[in-house]
Amino acid sequence: MIVKGKIINDPVYGFLRFPEPELLQLIEHPWFQRLRNIKQMGMAALVYPGAVHTRFHHSLGACHLMGKALDELKTKGVHISNEECLAARIAALLHDIGHGPFSHALEHTLVGGISHEALSHLIMMRLNAEMNGMLEKAIQVFDHSYHLKYLHQLVSSQLDVDRMDYLNRDSFYTGVSEGVIGYDRILQMLTVVNGELMVEEKGIHSIEKFIIARRLMYQQVYLHKTVLGAEQLLIKILERAKYLVAEGAILFATPALGYFLYKDLTIEDFRNEPEHLKRFCELDDSDVFAAIKTWQEHEDFVLSNLCKMMVLRKLYKVILDSKPLTDIFNRKKEEISSKLHINNNNISYFIFTGETSNNTYNTTDERIQIALKNGTVKDISEIDYSLVTQTLARPVHKNYICYAQI
Amino acid sequence: MIVKGKIINDPVYGFLRFPEPELLQLIEHPWFQRLRNIKQMGMAALVYPGAVHTRFHHSLGACHLMGKALDELKTKGVHISNEECLAARIAALLHDIGHGPFSHALEHTLVGGISHEALSHLIMMRLNAEMNGMLEKAIQVFDHSYHLKYLHQLVSSQLDVDRMDYLNRDSFYTGVSEGVIGYDRILQMLTVVNGELMVEEKGIHSIEKFIIARRLMYQQVYLHKTVLGAEQLLIKILERAKYLVAEGAILFATPALGYFLYKDLTIEDFRNEPEHLKRFCELDDSDVFAAIKTWQEHEDFVLSNLCKMMVLRKLYKVILDSKPLTDIFNRKKEEISSKLHINNNNISYFIFTGETSNNTYNTTDERIQIALKNGTVKDISEIDYSLVTQTLARPVHKNYICYAQI
Amino acid sequence: MIVKGKIINDPVYGFLRFPEPELLQLIEHPWFQRLRNIKQMGMAALVYPGAVHTRFHHSLGACHLMGKALDELKTKGVHISNEECLAARIAALLHDIGHGPFSHALEHTLVGGISHEALSHLIMMRLNAEMNGMLEKAIQVFDHSYHLKYLHQLVSSQLDVDRMDYLNRDSFYTGVSEGVIGYDRILQMLTVVNGELMVEEKGIHSIEKFIIARRLMYQQVYLHKTVLGAEQLLIKILERAKYLVAEGAILFATPALGYFLYKDLTIEDFRNEPEHLKRFCELDDSDVFAAIKTWQEHEDFVLSNLCKMMVLRKLYKVILDSKPLTDIFNRKKEEISSKLHINNNNISYFIFTGETSNNTYNTTDERIQIALKNGTVKDISEIDYSLVTQTLARPVHKNYICYAQI
Amino acid sequence: MIVKGKIINDPVYGFLRFPEPELLQLIEHPWFQRLRNIKQMGMAALVYPGAVHTRFHHSLGACHLMGKALDELKTKGVHISNEECLAARIAALLHDIGHGPFSHALEHTLVGGISHEALSHLIMMRLNAEMNGMLEKAIQVFDHSYHLKYLHQLVSSQLDVDRMDYLNRDSFYTGVSEGVIGYDRILQMLTVVNGELMVEEKGIHSIEKFIIARRLMYQQVYLHKTVLGAEQLLIKILERAKYLVAEGAILFATPALGYFLYKDLTIEDFRNEPEHLKRFCELDDSDVFAAIKTWQEHEDFVLSNLCKMMVLRKLYKVILDSKPLTDIFNRKKEEISSKLHINNNNISYFIFTGETSNNTYNTTDERIQIALKNGTVKDISEIDYSLVTQTLARPVHKNYICYAQI
Repeated sequence: MIVKGKIINDPVYGFLRFPEPELLQLIEHPWFQRLRNIKQMGMAALVYPGAVHTRFHHSLGACHLMGKALDELKTKGVHISNEECLAARIAALLHDIGHGPFSHALEHTLVGGISHEALSHLIMMRLNAEMNGMLEKAIQVFDHSYHLKYLHQLVSSQLDVDRMDYLNRDSFYTGVSEGVIGYDRILQMLTVVNGELMVEEKGIHSIEKFIIARRLMYQQVYLHKTVLGAEQLLIKILERAKYLVAEGAILFATPALGYFLYKDLTIEDFRNEPEHLKRFCELDDSDVFAAIKTWQEHEDFVLSNLCKMMVLRKLYKVILDSKPLTDIFNRKKEEISSKLHINNNNISYFIFTGETSNNTYNTTDERIQIALKNGTVKDISEIDYSLVTQTLARPVHKNYICYAQI
Repeated sequence: MIVKGKIINDPVYGFLRFPEPELLQLIEHPWFQRLRNIKQMGMAALVYPGAVHTRFHHSLGACHLMGKALDELKTKGVHISNEECLAARIAALLHDIGHGPFSHALEHTLVGGISHEALSHLIMMRLNAEMNGMLEKAIQVFDHSYHLKYLHQLVSSQLDVDRMDYLNRDSFYTGVSEGVIGYDRILQMLTVVNGELMVEEKGIHSIEKFIIARRLMYQQVYLHKTVLGAEQLLIKILERAKYLVAEGAILFATPALGYFLYKDLTIEDFRNEPEHLKRFCELDDSDVFAAIKTWQEHEDFVLSNLCKMMVLRKLYKVILDSKPLTDIFNRKKEEISSKLHINNNNISYFIFTGETSNNTYNTTDERIQIALKNGTVKDISEIDYSLVTQTLARPVHKNYICYAQI
Repeated sequence: MIVKGKIINDPVYGFLRFPEPELLQLIEHPWFQRLRNIKQMGMAALVYPGAVHTRFHHSLGACHLMGKALDELKTKGVHISNEECLAARIAALLHDIGHGPFSHALEHTLVGGISHEALSHLIMMRLNAEMNGMLEKAIQVFDHSYHLKYLHQLVSSQLDVDRMDYLNRDSFYTGVSEGVIGYDRILQMLTVVNGELMVEEKGIHSIEKFIIARRLMYQQVYLHKTVLGAEQLLIKILERAKYLVAEGAILFATPALGYFLYKDLTIEDFRNEPEHLKRFCELDDSDVFAAIKTWQEHEDFVLSNLCKMMVLRKLYKVILDSKPLTDIFNRKKEEISSKLHINNNNISYFIFTGETSNNTYNTTDERIQIALKNGTVKDISEIDYSLVTQTLARPVHKNYICYAQI
Repeated sequence: MIVKGKIINDPVYGFLRFPEPELLQLIEHPWFQRLRNIKQMGMAALVYPGAVHTRFHHSLGACHLMGKALDELKTKGVHISNEECLAARIAALLHDIGHGPFSHALEHTLVGGISHEALSHLIMMRLNAEMNGMLEKAIQVFDHSYHLKYLHQLVSSQLDVDRMDYLNRDSFYTGVSEGVIGYDRILQMLTVVNGELMVEEKGIHSIEKFIIARRLMYQQVYLHKTVLGAEQLLIKILERAKYLVAEGAILFATPALGYFLYKDLTIEDFRNEPEHLKRFCELDDSDVFAAIKTWQEHEDFVLSNLCKMMVLRKLYKVILDSKPLTDIFNRKKEEISSKLHINNNNISYFIFTGETSNNTYNTTDERIQIALKNGTVKDISEIDYSLVTQTLARPVHKNYICYAQI
C-alpha cells in the first residue's frame, strides 16, 4: 500500500528503493506503520514548524543509507553476502521501532526506565517469531552478536546510518542548513579494516564536518531552550497524570494510553507478557495529544494548568548556564508559589532544575576510527591536525531552570 | 513562543519574517496554533511519507508570499498603504483557518455541507470582535468587499498566494520535484492594471509552467488512487460512526470529536451559537486518528472493519476511468457481498462508485489575466500561442469504483 | 589527471563515476580535453553570467545519464551486454566532440556548412583507428548501424541523454529553475518494446513536463534576443574576417584560427586530409575571443567596429515578430546608412533580417513513443489527453531584424 | 546589455537586483566586463570541471551580499545613508577588479610583485576620475580611510562579503557541498558595536561553521595537489617566456599579453603611465591560453615541453608534507635530469620545491569579533567554548615538491 512499485519518494534522497520482499513485509507491518504517527523530533516542531517528519520516514532513510554504504564497501572489495546485506538493511530499518511517542518524555514516565533500544530488540524478537526466523541475522547484527563487527557499527556507532540520516533529515525539515552533511562523500570514504568500520584518511575533513554539523544541530535545535521547556512540560504532565491515577482519580484516555497510565512496567514485564508490547505498539502521538487537550478541563489544578500551558504554548521558560543557578531558582520559586498559591508538594511542577550533558564526540563509545595511509589506525580524536581534539571530546554539562510563565 | 525573534525557519523559503505585532498576536492564538496538528495534505502522506507538513506552515508561507508580492508591486509604483499590506497579510495568514482535520472528509460528514471558506470567514469575524476590530480590513480583502480588487485576487484566485505556496510546499515535502514552480519569477511578473491583478506578457511562460505544474500535482499526488481510496475510507468511517450514534450506539470519542458526532449543524447554527465554533477549533488530526484506532474494537461489524482497514492500510482499491464502470462494479459487488455476507444495507460501505472532476484552468472562476505589451488585456486561455487552450480549460471528469480488498 | 580516483564532482548530479578504463582513456585524450575550453551555451553567458559551463562537463553528464538509463533498463529485464553498455557510454561521451567554439556561428562561417555531427562521427573514426578498434561498436550505436535501435535512441532522439543533460545543466547554471526536469523519474519510466525506446504510460506527465521545460528554455534562454544578437554579431565578424583575408588583408590570428580563416573546407576535405581535423581539434573559445579583442584595432572600418561592439557589449538590437518586419527594416536601414555613411556593400553588416524556427515537439524526427498499458504503442502527440498536441508539434517561425545601436 | 531589467539570474542566490544606475554604469564598463573572461578559480577547473565561474559573477555576488548585510544592519537600527550604501556596494563590486587572468601565477610573473589589491585601488581611482568623483566614498571605504570602520570590514576582513560569496559560489560550482555556508544566517547575526563589525553571541556556531567550511575548501579544493601543480606549471611557463623574450627570442602573443611579456613594471610605473593599466585591463584568460597552445610548437625545448604538459594535462606531480622533503627531491632530480638530459640551468623547470602556508583563522588580520550578551567583546578565538582555538589559529605550513612526469 505504502510503496509505489517499491519506490518511495523522499525529498531528502530522491527515491528510496525497496526491492526486497522481506523489507516490504516489515514495512507493511502495523508495528512499523505506527511510526508514521510518531514525529521524529517530537516537540522541536514547536520551534521549527517544518520539522514534523516521522520516525517512519527516518527509518526508511536509514535503511536506504545502509544499502548505499554496503554497495560502497562492496566496490572496495569487501565481501558481503546477500543475506548479510538484507540483515543489515533490516537492522537499520527497525533500529528505532521501539520508540514511543515523544520518546524522551515517555522513557521518563509512562514506560519509566525502559530504553527504546531494549524495546526495539524485543519487538524484533517478536517479529522474528511471527515471521519464522526471518530476522535472525538482523537481530545478531543489531545486538552485536554477529561476527562482522562493521555491520553492527553501521547500525549503531558514532558514524552509523542512524546519525547520518537524522542529521540530514532534521536539517532538511527544520531548514537549518548548517546541519546538512555530505553523506555521499562520507559513504565513499568508508572502508573495513580487520572487520571494523573505518574512514579513509582522506575523509578526515568530511568527518570533522559531520561532527561539527552534529554539534551545531545540538546547540541550535535539539537542545534549543524552547524545545527543552516543552519536553519538560510533557514529562511533568505525564508524571502528574500517573500520580493522579495512582491516587484514584479518573482521567480521560484513549485505550492505548490508558493501559500505560495505570501500570508500572519493567522490561521484564514486557518480556513475560506479550500483551504489554502489543499495547505499546498501539501508542502514537495522537494518544498523547488528544489526552492533553482533554485534560485541560480536568478538575486537578496542576494537571489542567500544565495542559493549558501546553495547548496554548505558554511553555516553561528556561535558563541555561554552565554554572549552578541556585539564586535565581530560589527567587523565582518564591515568586511563583506566592502568586499561584501552590503548596510545597506541587511547586515542583511549576519550577524545577535539571541538567543536560552532551558530547560532541565521545571517546568511550563506539569511536570513529581512521585508516591512515601508512597502514595504522587511529581514533579521530588522536589525530593531531584534526579538529576533534580533547576539547570536543569533553562532555558539555549545563544546568537549567524551568519555570512557568505567570 | 513559536517565533524566534520574529524569524521562523522554513526549508522552502529560508526564513519567514513577521515583524508586525498584529500578525504575531494572530499566530499565537490557539485557533491558529491548532493548525499545527492538521496535516496540509491529509491522507497523501500514506503515499508520500514526507508530506506531513501542516496547515500551520502553509498559512505562514502564504502570508510570506503575500508580503513578497506586495513588495514587488510597490517597486512597480502601485501604491499600497501599510494598513492595506497588513490587511492582505492577515487575510493570507487566515485564509485556511476554517479547515478541520482531513478537511475533504470532514466537509462531507462531521460538518456536512459547510465549506471551510465559510468557517474561515466566521472565525475571522470572531477574532475581529475579540481583537477590537483589528481584522476589519483583512475581512474585507478576504470576502471581496474591499475596493482594491487585486488584494482579494492575491488571496483567492487562480494565481493566489495560496496556490503558489501549496504547490511549492507540497512538491517540496512530497519530493515530487516536477511540481516546483518558479514562484519568485511569477511574483516578479505580477502587475496591477485598473485595480486588477495581471501578469506581464513576458511572464506567460512562467504562468504556463505554473499551470502545468498544478496539473501534474493533481495527476500524480492529489488524485493519486491510493490517496483517493484513503479519503473515501475516512468518509465512510465517519458516516458509519454518525449513523451508529444516531441509532443510539455508544462510541469512544475525544470530547472535541464527540461534540460533532452527536450533532448535525448548519452554517447558521455556527453563526448563532458561538460554542459550536469554539468546539470546532478544538478538533485536529489527533481526535480523528485516536478514534479510528479505538473503533477497531467496536462491536459493529462495519465500523470495526473499516477502521481496521485504515489502521492496517488495507485501503480500498480504486479503479479510475473516463468511461462508466458498471460492469466491473456489478461483478465486484456480487463477489464482495457473497464473501463478506453483507446485506444490501451495508454493502455500500465496501463497494461504491464516485466521480472526480478537475479543471487544469477554469475559465469561469477568478481568471489569470495577461497585460499585453500593446496595452490590452487577455485571459491566458485566449492567447493563441499559449498552452492554456480550450483543451486545458475543459474539465476532466473521471468515474471511479472503490472496493474493499478481501 | 582530471579524475580523482575515477570520481568527478558534479554540482548537477553529485558524483560522476567512470570505472571503465576505456572511458578514462578517451576523457584524457587532448581532443576531448579541448572541450574544457568550449562553453556549452556560447553567447548565452552574456545574459546569464552563471552559464559558463563547458561542453566537457555536458559530455561527462550525458555519459553519466546513459549509465543510469541502462541500469534502469536492466532492472526491467532488458538484456544488455557489458560491451554494449560501454559502447553506449562512449557514444554519449563523444556525441558532441565535433563541436567547435561557438558552434552555431562557426558552422555558418569558419567551417561553413559542415555539421558538428559529421565532425563528431569523423573524430570517432580517427580515435577508433588510433585506439585499435576500441570504438567500433560505439560508432555503430552513434550512426544507427547497430541492431539495437534503443541504444541509438538514447544517444540521439527527442528523449536522449543529450537533451536530458543539457536541459538540466543549462537550467542549473543559468539559474532558470523552470527548465529543471525530473530526469530521475524520466529514467525510471523508460522501457524497451520491440527493440525501441519507449516511455511507460504512467510516465506521460513527466514527459509533458520535459517537453514544456524545453519549450520554456528555448523562449527564455536559447532564443533570448540578446543571445541571438550576440550570435549574429559573431557570425558577421567571422564572415568579415574571411572576406578580408580573401581580399588579401593581413589579420592577427592564433595559428589554430588562422588555419581556418584562410581555407574553405568541405567535409570531404576533412575526410581526405587528416591535418584539417587535427587543426580543428586545436580550436577553442580562446582563439576566437583573442582574435576579436585584437581586431578592434584593425584598419577595416567594418571589422573593427563589429569587434568593438562585441567587446563593449553594444550588441545588435533585435526585433522579433511572427509577422514580416519590412517597414521597420527599411526605416532603420536608411537611418543607419545615413548616420554611419556606409555604402550598400557593407550595410548588411549593420542591419539585416533573419528567421528562426523551433519545434517544441517534432513529429517527423525521432519521436517519443508511449507504451500503453493495453499493450499498444502511440506517439505522444497522438494521445488525446496529452498536452503534446498538434499545437505544440507545429513549428514556430519568427522573423527578426538585427541592427547596430548607433 | 548584461542586465535584464536590472535583474540578473544567479543560481546561487536566485536573483541579483541592481536598481542603482551608478552600479549599472560600472557593470557595463569594459574593465568590469573583462572579468567575464577571468575564471574565479583559475586552474581548479581542471579538478572540478564545474568550477568555471568567473570573477564577474563573484563580484556581482559580493555586491549583492553587501546590500543584504546593510539591509540587515538597518533593521537593527544602524543608521546608514543611501550614499554610504552605494559606496559600500561599489567597493564590494570592484574589490577584485585588479585581478588578472590566473592571478596567482600572474602576480609572480607577468606583473611580478604587484598585488591585485593595489591594482584594484588604482583602477578605482581611474574610474573615479573618468566618472567625475562618483567613486570617491567607495574608495575611502575600500582603502579604510572612511570613518565607519564596519563598512571597510564588510569589504575586507575575515568575515567580509568577498569570502562569504566565494565560499558559497565555489562550493556551488565545484559541487563540494561541504563548503556551503549559511550565509543568510550569518548576515542575520551581524551587528555594529562602536563602529565595528561584530557577530552576536548566538551566532558563534554559524561563524564556527563558516570557518570550518573555509578550512575544508582549502584542504579539498584550493590547495588540492593537482591544482597546485597546474598553477606552478603556469608560473614556470610564464617565467620561461619572459626569460626567452629577455634573451631576444620571438614568441607568439596576443597584443595584450605581448605588452607585458616585454616589460617589467612596478606599481609606480602603473601609477605614472596610464597606458599600462589600460593594457592590463585588456588581459584575460584567452590571452594566456591561446599563447600556451601556440607555444607548444616553439623551438625552445623547455617552453614547448612545459606548454605541452599543460595542454595535455600531464601536470607536475606534487608531494606535500609537513616535513622537509630533501631526500625525495634529490633522488627525483637526478632521475629527471638524466632522463631528459637537462642541464643544471634548466632543471628547475622540471623539478623544484616550495612551501604553502594557510591559516584557518588569523588572529593578527582583521579579526572576527563577538558581541557577547554581557556587553563585552571578544575575538572568536578567545571564547573558550568555541572551536576556533589556538589550534586553528596556528598557520599550517607545508613543504612540497613539484616534478614533471616523465
